[in-house]
Order: sequence, then C-alpha cells, then structure tokens
Amino acid sequence: MKIINAKEAGKDEIFRLLKKAPFDEVELSPKIREANKKLFGEDLSPAELVRRIVRDVREKGDEALLSYTKMFDGVEALASDLIVTEDEFKAAEKEADKEVVAALSRAAANIRRYHEEQKPNSWITYRDHGSILGQSVIPLDKVGIYVPGGTAAYPSSVLMNAIPASVAGVKEIIMTVPPKNGKINPYVLIAAKLAGVAKVYKAGGAQAIAALAYGTKTIPQVDKITGPGNLFVTLAKKEVFGAVDIDMLAGPSEILILADKSADPKLAAADMLSQAEHDPLASSILITDSLDLAEKVAAEVQIQLAALPRKEIAEASVERNGLIVIAEDLEQGIEFANYSAPEHMEILTSAPFEILPKIKHAGAVFLGSYSPEPLGDYFAGPNHVLPTGGTARFYSVLNVETFLKRTSIISYTEAALKEASDDIVKLAESEGLEAHANAVKLRKFLQ
Amino acid sequence: MKIINAKEAGKDEIFRLLKKAPFDEVELSPKIREANKKLFGEDLSPAELVRRIVRDVREKGDEALLSYTKMFDGVEALASDLIVTEDEFKAAEKEADKEVVAALSRAAANIRRYHEEQKPNSWITYRDHGSILGQSVIPLDKVGIYVPGGTAAYPSSVLMNAIPASVAGVKEIIMTVPPKNGKINPYVLIAAKLAGVAKVYKAGGAQAIAALAYGTKTIPQVDKITGPGNLFVTLAKKEVFGAVDIDMLAGPSEILILADKSADPKLAAADMLSQAEHDPLASSILITDSLDLAEKVAAEVQIQLAALPRKEIAEASVERNGLIVIAEDLEQGIEFANYSAPEHMEILTSAPFEILPKIKHAGAVFLGSYSPEPLGDYFAGPNHVLPTGGTARFYSVLNVETFLKRTSIISYTEAALKEASDDIVKLAESEGLEAHANAVKLRKFLQ
Repeated sequence: MKIINAKEAGKDEIFRLLKKAPFDEVELSPKIREANKKLFGEDLSPAELVRRIVRDVREKGDEALLSYTKMFDGVEALASDLIVTEDEFKAAEKEADKEVVAALSRAAANIRRYHEEQKPNSWITYRDHGSILGQSVIPLDKVGIYVPGGTAAYPSSVLMNAIPASVAGVKEIIMTVPPKNGKINPYVLIAAKLAGVAKVYKAGGAQAIAALAYGTKTIPQVDKITGPGNLFVTLAKKEVFGAVDIDMLAGPSEILILADKSADPKLAAADMLSQAEHDPLASSILITDSLDLAEKVAAEVQIQLAALPRKEIAEASVERNGLIVIAEDLEQGIEFANYSAPEHMEILTSAPFEILPKIKHAGAVFLGSYSPEPLGDYFAGPNHVLPTGGTARFYSVLNVETFLKRTSIISYTEAALKEASDDIVKLAESEGLEAHANAVKLRKFLQ
Repeated sequence: MKIINAKEAGKDEIFRLLKKAPFDEVELSPKIREANKKLFGEDLSPAELVRRIVRDVREKGDEALLSYTKMFDGVEALASDLIVTEDEFKAAEKEADKEVVAALSRAAANIRRYHEEQKPNSWITYRDHGSILGQSVIPLDKVGIYVPGGTAAYPSSVLMNAIPASVAGVKEIIMTVPPKNGKINPYVLIAAKLAGVAKVYKAGGAQAIAALAYGTKTIPQVDKITGPGNLFVTLAKKEVFGAVDIDMLAGPSEILILADKSADPKLAAADMLSQAEHDPLASSILITDSLDLAEKVAAEVQIQLAALPRKEIAEASVERNGLIVIAEDLEQGIEFANYSAPEHMEILTSAPFEILPKIKHAGAVFLGSYSPEPLGDYFAGPNHVLPTGGTARFYSVLNVETFLKRTSIISYTEAALKEASDDIVKLAESEGLEAHANAVKLRKFLQ
C-alpha cells in the first residue's frame, strides 16, 4: 500500500494517483487471453470479441446462446433447459439456511421501503386560457437483470436490482445468471422470488446480454438491462445500448474513506479491506489530515489482512490499488475525494454531516463510525449498484428512476394557440421549416 | 404513401410495418460512402469510421480535431479559431431580426418555466434509533451540447438542451456546432446566450463528440453530452458512452397521429408534413378508425405537399415512410400506437384526455386540435429532444433529471447498527465475504 503526503508530493501527483483507468482499458490476464485466442482462433481485443458474440446471438438466437454457454460455462444444454423450473426453486428453498433467508427477507423489506420513498408522480400544470402541460411518469414494460455467478454468488445484487424495478411498477422482471456446474446458487433463486422476478434463465456473459437485448426463441427481449458484471458483460451492455437502455457501465469496486484523527484505525482498515476482498482490481483509499491515523491504518490493514479467507485477493488489491493520502487539511481532503468520485465514500470525522454538502461526486456516502460500507451493501435500504471509476461524476446510484421513463403532455386550447401562433410561425420560418409554420397557420385560419 | 386496412391485412402485418429499423442500420447514400472511401482509403462501415475518428481525437487532441474539421466542414482553422468570440456574438445580434429574437426569448421563458417545475429536491428520511437515510440530488459540473448545423440551423435545439441544464444547476454548459463556411448561424449564437451557454466551439460530427468526451487542449472535457445529430454523431455518442454519459441515441424524426372521424383532415395532413419535411428518413403515420378520414388525409397530404419549399424532402419521406392505418376501432389504434412508441404522438379525437392514460410509450403526447407538434417543437415549454425509433419504450424526453445525478446517504447510529449487525454478518458470510462481515463485527465488539 502506498502512503503519500500531499504537501510533499504536490496536488497534481495526488490527482494523478487518484485517476482511474477507464473500465475498458483493463488488461486481461495472459491466461484468459490465451484461452480466448484458442476459442476464437484469433487474438481479439475484448471489445472485438464481445461484438462477435453479440452479433452471433443477434443473428442466430438460441443456437449461438447455447453454443457460447457451452464454451464459457461448460454446460451442454438444450434451449428448454435454460429456464429455471419450479422444482429448482423448491429445491433451493429446501437447501437454504432459514436464518439467511430470514435476513434476506428483512433486507428486502428495508430496500423496498427506501425505494418506495423515491417514487415520483406524473404531474400536470395549468397555463393561460385553459391549457395544460405535464409529464407522465411510466414504468418500463420489461426489464432484464444480470446477476454474476462467477467466484461468488450475490443474492444481494438480485434484491438491489429487482426491488427498485418492482417498486417502479415494471410488469415483467426477468433475470439471467451464469450456471455453475449447471446450477444456480439457492440464495440467488430465493432472492429472485422475494423480489418479484418472473423468470430466471441460466445464461451469463456477453451472450446473455445479447439475448436480453435482441430476444431469442427462449429468452424474451427486454427494454432495459441492469446489473453488475465482468469486463465482457460491461462491454456487451455498451454494445447493445440503443437497442435497449442500460443502467451504467461499471468496473471494479472502490471505497474512499475521509477521516480525521477522531477515526478508529481498526474500523478504517476493516472497511478498506471489505472492498479489497472483492477483486484484485478493487481499490481502497484513505484520505486523512492525520499522519498518526495514516500510519496506524496502514499497520492495521496488514494485521487484519493476515486473517482473511480471501487474503490473496485482498492482498493483491491492497498492493495494487491501496492508497493512503495525507492531506494538508480536511478541505483539501474533500477536494481529493470529489476528484476521485468514489463508488463508496465513508466520512469518519467528528462531524460528518458538516462535510456532506461539500461532497459533489460519490455513488453513496456513509456517515460516521456506525455506517460501514457493508451496511449499505446488504441491509440499510439504499442501493448497492453504484457508479465506479470516477463515473459518479455523471451516473446515479441505481434507483426507482432507473426503471421509469418520462413523456411530455401538451394540451393547448384555441385561445392559447392563437396567442402563441405568431411566435411559432416566426421561429419555424427562421429555421426554414415552412411545413411546421403551416401546421400552425392552418389552425389560425380556421378560427 | 401506403394506406392499409388492419382488418384485411391482419395485426401482424401492421406491427411489421410499424417496426422501425435500428438507428445504426441506416444505409448511407452511395455518394457519402464513396466520399468516405476516398477520405479514409477503405470502405469502412459508419461504426468503424466513427471508432477511428474517436480514437484519433482521443490520442491526438486538437490536431486530429482540426484535421477532421478541414476534411468534413471544409474549414482550415487554427485551434485558436475554434472558440466563438465576443465579437462574433455581437455580430450575430446585429444581424438578427429583432422579432425572431423576441420570439426566441418568449420561447426560452416558457421552456424555463416548464423545466423549473421538474426540479426534484435532495431528501432525507428517518429510521429507528436516530438513523438517517436519504438521497442527494446534485447537478453535473460540466455538460456539452451538440447542435447540428447541416442543412438547417436549429436555435430551438440550443434552448431545448441548454435551458434544462441551466435549470438543473450545471456549472458550465459548453456547446459545439459545425461551422458553415466558417460561420455559425446568428440565431444559434443568440439562443446560446439566452440559455446560459458559457462557451461555443466551431466543431461538428464525431470529432466534436470525441473532443467533448476526452477533452483537447482547446475543448474542455465534459461529464455528459446531449443533443441531436446525424448517424455519425449518434454513433460517436455511443462510442464515448462510459467515458461520459449521454442523453440517448436517436434517429430520424417521427409523428404518429391517432384520430377519429372528428379530426380535421387538413390539420392531420399538415402535422404529418411537419415531420416529413425534416428528413427523407422521417416518418409520418396516421392511425384512425375512420376510412373516410384516412382517404381525406391521404388526399390532403398530396395537396399541401405541392406548396412546400422543402417539397423534395417531404415527398421522399412520405413516399418512403408515410403510412395510414385503418384500425378496427380506437382501442386497436392505441395498441398499434403503443407498439410503435412514437417520438411525437398527436391525439386528434373527440375526447383526447380519455385516451392519455392508455398511452404507454411515446416521447411527447399532443392532445386535441390546438396542440400541433410544432407548438412543442418551439414554444409551449416541454422539451423537443425526444426518443425515436421505438426507443420511447425505454428513453425519456430530455428533462432536468438528464442533468442531475443521485447519491445515497446512509447514517446509522450505534444502536441501529447493533440491531442490524447479525443480519448483515449472516448475509456477508453467505456470500463468502468475510471482510464485509468483519467490518460489522469489529463495531459490535467495540460496543
């Protein structure tokens, strides 16, 4: 882990260290690259590979989907095997630990309650002469949720994607998960039921995204795809964007902790490691005005690291992307934090709410010592699908709006149009659009 | 123009006719293709060509931007010529017709007033034991607006993009417009001033989008790019998506009119032509339960067409994409309309508000005889940047939300975390994430 003093290194150097590589500039491991080269007969870039998979599934439907499922997930399946059956749901319920299911249910209730509070209404507003303007807020018809199924299974991601869609009023929520040995994690299936998912399909990777975007005989075409995934899934979401909407393009997970000397170094270290254990590419950053805290956190990270089951991953992440910045003061720390635009931001200072209004760019802000990041990952209610890699500059946390769309309402009366008509004609004519002017003039002559 | 009876042709045939080609499957004219082949030395697809332009500008900045500006806009310029100067703004004001400027100002006021009514607040909500959850709603820092400058100039598009950004509270709005003979239309510049645009640059096409997304020495990098454009601009927006956010991927303009026998055929025909004159690829559709109306509108279109200055464009559009569908009844007409998910939808029936709740997919809905589409294009206040090609199934009309982002707020107290801690630990452990569990357990032991 790098420890760096802003006063000595200079602000520009800190900015340089905080800058994230774009999600699509991630290097593939030589192993994966070699494997893909064997499969495709060419050394394709990830983007080229994904374009080929998407094109194949778009053109050949189930046939291509099944062949890629065999290639990447090692499952030889018929189209009829793709959908998860009622029997499989029942088996999942039997297999599951009741206490985990109860915890999932309580988390689901919190997530639902929080997202209910986000729901906007359609509205109208009145104008002169009896005219009405407004905006309809309408849920999407069909949504596809992608749930990763690789090294870990994430039932929490099912809840975090499907519940906001359900709260928004989406008619049909469908889900795809890559199978592991032909099976899907039981808690993922239980979470799907809890959240109101209509159908679950055993498919993953770019091929699943393409199937959701264009539809196959088996998998229905949706209007929007949300959910996290690896580089190939993310590139596929970009590739199908426009044919469907997507939530965002996200990369590895991140935490940035802004702390003063009041912070407990044990807690700061634990929270940094809770990100680091996700992925060797994950990033954990501490920014503090206290040299003493910086040193203690660095030491604590090493101590706690030793005891972790996912030590290897967490250690690689801390080595590669762990960073402690000693800022000249908290104001400068805030400047660095905003520049970084982290996915998760914790404020471990003596008065965290006084800092909140200055945080311009972050996916989620956790205030105070009793709001560790996993509280938000699993339980409190706010969403854990968050922008990464500095994209909190422009992307929102997943929310009910993600599953709604807005339509304008315009209703003018005769008198109102009459009053506006000269202006409209003038503007249309100044743009050289005479048929636009005509549509208004004709109505004037009718009066 | 095709007239087709749903009863005879069958619903599936109507659906087939209403289905739009994806925006990226538009065929280039042989002329443009030949020109591009000459410029690039290869017969590149539009997507390949755009990827090359974007990569060049990303790598070489101003140098590539200027070289493409010379190539496509025929303007040999220095980097210092790109920005529009105060003198050019002053010249625009001198040159402009005062009445058009007054009409633009009144339109701007209406647009601002309507969009002000869309502004959401940040909010908090209380939970047990003194906990707080909430959501910050924060404007983007920097936004880039693309304004086309090809066959026609669209000051109205400047207002429709920049005013919502200004209402949202965006700090810096910058704009790019392709120059025509080295100049920019005076009304476009006046609209920029009216709407609060900070800087205007003379650049267009995919190269301008790339410059906004990655920044050059001259053009600042923005967080989001909005605004309409041709196929190359749209493909470039897709290509840079993820590095910045974009509003939507849109194609040629469309209108769909749902009318019963109460509708005036002259008005319906005029409104269809107001779309048709935009672009040979634009589409104008009438759906009605009245055979009589269908025939009268078809005849009126021919009559009005003859008198239009942009007759050639409108005629090509009507030939190619004009469609009149005779539905069995209005209910079926609504089903067709929702399937089509048109950009602009007019309801010309005796009781239009009774139909509104059934409209699930449309960019903007215009109700009744005195709400012609140009009223929305220029003046009423709702936005004219709208989803096309069936993407109203998932995209919203451009609105204040387009320029805002949402961040979660999570603040738990000691007692609240204590109550939640067992559930969080259970869930983290069930996902195999021990460091997540640790972050919570450590806090419990502290108590």
